[in-house]
Amino acid sequence: MSSVKWTLKKLDVKREANVPSDIEISRRQTPKPITQLAKEIGIKDEELEPYGDKKAKVQLSILKRYNNQENGKYVLVVGMTPTPLGEGKSTTTIGLAQALFSELGHPSFACVRQPSQGPTFGIKGGAAGGGYSQVIPMEEFNLHLTGDIHAITAANNLLAAAIDARMFHEATQKDDALFDRLVPKNKEGKRLLTPIQQRRLQRLGIAVQDDAEKLSPEDRVRFARLDIDPKTITWSRVIDTSDRFLRGIEVGHGNTEKGHVRKTDFKISVGSELMAILALSLSLADMRERIGKIVVATDNKGQPVTCDDVGCTGAVTVLMKDTIKPTLMQTVEGTPVFVHAGPFANIAHGASSVVADKLALKLVGKEGFVVTEAGFGMDIGGEKFLDIKCRSSGLSPNVVVIVATVRALKMHGGGPPVTPGNLPAAYRTPNLELLEKGCDSNLKKQIENIQKFGLPVVVCVNKFSTDSDEELNLVKEKAHKFNAVGVISNHWAKGGEGAKELAQAVKEAANKKSEFKFLYDVNKSIKEKIEIIAKEMYGASGVEYSEAAETTIKRYTDQGFGNLPLCMAKTQLSLSHDPTKKGAPTGFTLPIRDVSISVGAGFIFPFCGEIMTMPGLNTRPCFYDIDIDPETEIIDGLF
Amino acid sequence: MSSVKWTLKKLDVKREANVPSDIEISRRQTPKPITQLAKEIGIKDEELEPYGDKKAKVQLSILKRYNNQENGKYVLVVGMTPTPLGEGKSTTTIGLAQALFSELGHPSFACVRQPSQGPTFGIKGGAAGGGYSQVIPMEEFNLHLTGDIHAITAANNLLAAAIDARMFHEATQKDDALFDRLVPKNKEGKRLLTPIQQRRLQRLGIAVQDDAEKLSPEDRVRFARLDIDPKTITWSRVIDTSDRFLRGIEVGHGNTEKGHVRKTDFKISVGSELMAILALSLSLADMRERIGKIVVATDNKGQPVTCDDVGCTGAVTVLMKDTIKPTLMQTVEGTPVFVHAGPFANIAHGASSVVADKLALKLVGKEGFVVTEAGFGMDIGGEKFLDIKCRSSGLSPNVVVIVATVRALKMHGGGPPVTPGNLPAAYRTPNLELLEKGCDSNLKKQIENIQKFGLPVVVCVNKFSTDSDEELNLVKEKAHKFNAVGVISNHWAKGGEGAKELAQAVKEAANKKSEFKFLYDVNKSIKEKIEIIAKEMYGASGVEYSEAAETTIKRYTDQGFGNLPLCMAKTQLSLSHDPTKKGAPTGFTLPIRDVSISVGAGFIFPFCGEIMTMPGLNTRPCFYDIDIDPETEIIDGLF
Repeated sequence: MSSVKWTLKKLDVKREANVPSDIEISRRQTPKPITQLAKEIGIKDEELEPYGDKKAKVQLSILKRYNNQENGKYVLVVGMTPTPLGEGKSTTTIGLAQALFSELGHPSFACVRQPSQGPTFGIKGGAAGGGYSQVIPMEEFNLHLTGDIHAITAANNLLAAAIDARMFHEATQKDDALFDRLVPKNKEGKRLLTPIQQRRLQRLGIAVQDDAEKLSPEDRVRFARLDIDPKTITWSRVIDTSDRFLRGIEVGHGNTEKGHVRKTDFKISVGSELMAILALSLSLADMRERIGKIVVATDNKGQPVTCDDVGCTGAVTVLMKDTIKPTLMQTVEGTPVFVHAGPFANIAHGASSVVADKLALKLVGKEGFVVTEAGFGMDIGGEKFLDIKCRSSGLSPNVVVIVATVRALKMHGGGPPVTPGNLPAAYRTPNLELLEKGCDSNLKKQIENIQKFGLPVVVCVNKFSTDSDEELNLVKEKAHKFNAVGVISNHWAKGGEGAKELAQAVKEAANKKSEFKFLYDVNKSIKEKIEIIAKEMYGASGVEYSEAAETTIKRYTDQGFGNLPLCMAKTQLSLSHDPTKKGAPTGFTLPIRDVSISVGAGFIFPFCGEIMTMPGLNTRPCFYDIDIDPETEIIDGLF
Repeated sequence: MSSVKWTLKKLDVKREANVPSDIEISRRQTPKPITQLAKEIGIKDEELEPYGDKKAKVQLSILKRYNNQENGKYVLVVGMTPTPLGEGKSTTTIGLAQALFSELGHPSFACVRQPSQGPTFGIKGGAAGGGYSQVIPMEEFNLHLTGDIHAITAANNLLAAAIDARMFHEATQKDDALFDRLVPKNKEGKRLLTPIQQRRLQRLGIAVQDDAEKLSPEDRVRFARLDIDPKTITWSRVIDTSDRFLRGIEVGHGNTEKGHVRKTDFKISVGSELMAILALSLSLADMRERIGKIVVATDNKGQPVTCDDVGCTGAVTVLMKDTIKPTLMQTVEGTPVFVHAGPFANIAHGASSVVADKLALKLVGKEGFVVTEAGFGMDIGGEKFLDIKCRSSGLSPNVVVIVATVRALKMHGGGPPVTPGNLPAAYRTPNLELLEKGCDSNLKKQIENIQKFGLPVVVCVNKFSTDSDEELNLVKEKAHKFNAVGVISNHWAKGGEGAKELAQAVKEAANKKSEFKFLYDVNKSIKEKIEIIAKEMYGASGVEYSEAAETTIKRYTDQGFGNLPLCMAKTQLSLSHDPTKKGAPTGFTLPIRDVSISVGAGFIFPFCGEIMTMPGLNTRPCFYDIDIDPETEIIDGLF
């Protein structure tokens, strides 16, 4: 039935009624050799770079080979506003992809994101889906994977080190010494400019010379001094560890730095602009160009200072070169998964990569399906997916699945606070009243949010063992009332089989005509765009700007970056900026604390109130439970 | 001729008289598929974990399989005191390994260290040997490799984050709250202790309970409060980037940390104790045990606080689990190389790993040779190799090769200062007077240093194109005078063929009876051991201790760690602690600024004067020259 020839074989799963822990399930299932999976889905040996025998990077050359292939259907999975426990969005993504193949016989691919090791060792313990809908082996998925996040960390921090070192050298050297060192004499006594230095001359409007000695004294100074205004630096260091003590730091306290102390911070690595660049780039060439354009600061004349000015474009690209290739893994049922790009859709763009989706859409062919996810609720991850990622890729989903759970709906209906390790009784016993209120507030609003983009909606009610049939059916009915299709799904306990009805509903909805449109026109001003998102997505009645935000909005508008789309940094725990406001709050004023910029990724970054870019460790992090048996190499505690 | 059956095939090298750049040579040579190389040297498919087709991790199970195999000969390559440009120690290691196979027909393996990306993007641009004696592909060798250093960074920083977070939680929580959170009630209402928490009770001498509720109020406090004295913390964060602004930092400036600011630093990742643990561990079990024993600080009662007390042993081991496996690559002539552990023998132990050497010794069999290297000069890298690594491994070299260059000898004879990018005329024209003075001072002393360990010495005069025959022969004669064998070697320009004479000399020397002995008895006091190294290796007349050093020496002696070997942190640029003192200085007093401890790795860490644990970027780092062609993926600027 497919235009592509897959020879994919489902892995037999011996399911137990009493579902074991995720790592138990993963451990009991033997994955296919990754080379075999690649063959089954039409990837050639020379297009595959195995990392061990359970994961492999895949080359982008497949895109060229499949140039004339029609795309499959594109399915986006989003969430309602979640509890801090998560509502099973990744699990649904995997379960649905499993069902589309195993139950309906369509080629299918899941595209998910590589988890950050910060939460893995802090609060979560793993993020490969769950139950009988997960990526295996889960420890390989959760630990290092194929090194993309580590490469981002290294590349991000090279640029950060280069910025501080350059400011130091400019501050401690006279013009001549600085110039002579930047363009040292070669053996023939000439001061040759490298290509990256020539590009800086071009941007400065200075006629490019081979030999820098030919530059006028004034031009030498302009060339040599980046003259960064330290207050405007937007490039932070990053680390893939939940380290709260790096949220605010002072660097330069060593004797050798001669008192050049500066306040700055570390962000979690997946929040690096380089992660967004990885996710949005169409090719290595596109990635290199975006890296060069990264704006790291503003100079004392008000002009942007770029990664290219700092001299790092090539080096950062070299460190990132393998990250552009998605990693192939498999589900517990042996269907293919691309793992690519990173999470944290609250403080980052947080969707899987454009190239992974494009590759998967070609590989499944026109009868196939690609299921991918956006982080957290539709208001943040979903909006960014559609307004940022789809603008970059030129793709748009055929259907959006929103994952709802009875427990999250009850919380939005007024249930007591939910915290990790503490689920109050109201959530474990039937309560139709709380549930209905949650449906009529948060679920309704998030469905409307999807409909504003002109896309068909399927509500997946992700079943938990404590949910009553009455409760589950109520959500289904409500979905129908909100002009969406509602389906109860049990993929956590039953894998693809449990998501058969969901797959069927998705297949039908995907064949409807969609009338996709963006939420806003990028050519509107930064403030206009912020207001559209605040009012249309979040339910705010207005927006207020801090003084800092007013300054940065003016700065980036003056620099000509006003027409970029927005990547809002907002809490994932409420439609508003206030994590305690559940349901669908209205009438509030959204505070914009500051605005940053990611020119390489291609967006403006407004911060809605206090929002942390570095997670912390609580008193008893989950690392207490993590261990390895040195003989068997079996890992415990990643659950 | 060998007890093992190798089917190793030499790769044909098309050498040019005018030697191209390292990356050119690497690029022109097509390496064998790594699976083929593995087969050729007796590694089975199931023992290999390929990372792409040019490098692979190798499983330690080979050690068991080859249990009855006799070891090959063990050759250590060390340096004289180098110029800042390096004297070709890695190049000699590779060239010698090539010659032993290609010219003399012996199975041979080189064991080298993974370079740090700090210098690669700062001053050096690559560290895979050079010319026709290098590891290929050099960009794969220099970039990320198989992720070991990244894993160390992640593991090291998890522990660092855990220490600061724990101190914060102890400072901001009352006894009961802290205890309740560390041992939360499970669903059955019990406060179950995890194994790592039970081990803490054992160390505290408290009877172990399943349910923590059974502990007395006093024991609960003792259990819950690590009570770290912040002034005694020895665990730094690390990063594999040359970032001078992280040499001294203050953490905890974020609002959420409520004023708990602390002065600390970042070290270069390869200086992490975890790198030394990787290098010295005999197995994953040994690694896990060493990780648990890491001492991160002292508590307010004077007792050591360990990684196990912080709760991180299992998690750190899980992050490190794949690092214990050496990475297999190949030389430009297709002979096998293990890349494992890290450099920086000035501030770290800095030798390749024990398991790589052990595996290689088994794989080559009794007719074979394993050539490995120690960092920088014999006084630091060599001394640590013999006194630390050989104590851990139980192995000792059959012969030591010391690499000398005419330029370094001239510098020690009184030549003008050598800096990167600036080699004064005296070094490019014959000057027998400077050369002889250098031989009679530094070379003589470093040869004597080797002889103090009872080992035969071969002096490899590493030929440069600017050296005259008279100069080269003088060094050779001097070697003979110092009771060593002298050989002129030209492996940089001619590969294995250029090192044939060296290989022959090594083979002969390796068959002599050696009378290996350690430099000191570990059971002597810390001060006695420091004084032996200072006087015997460095030529000092005495040692002086700062107040800080007196305090820490007393602390670690009181804690029972006085009988560990020493890992001296000292400049590599002089036999003394003063980098400007060339030749073989005597009569100086060695200052010990401070003493740290690495109980997991198993050594005491005295700091000799000012010594930087984090490199910096100069005004024009080599990243200016690094770039990648996005179409061909060819990298330039790693030279």
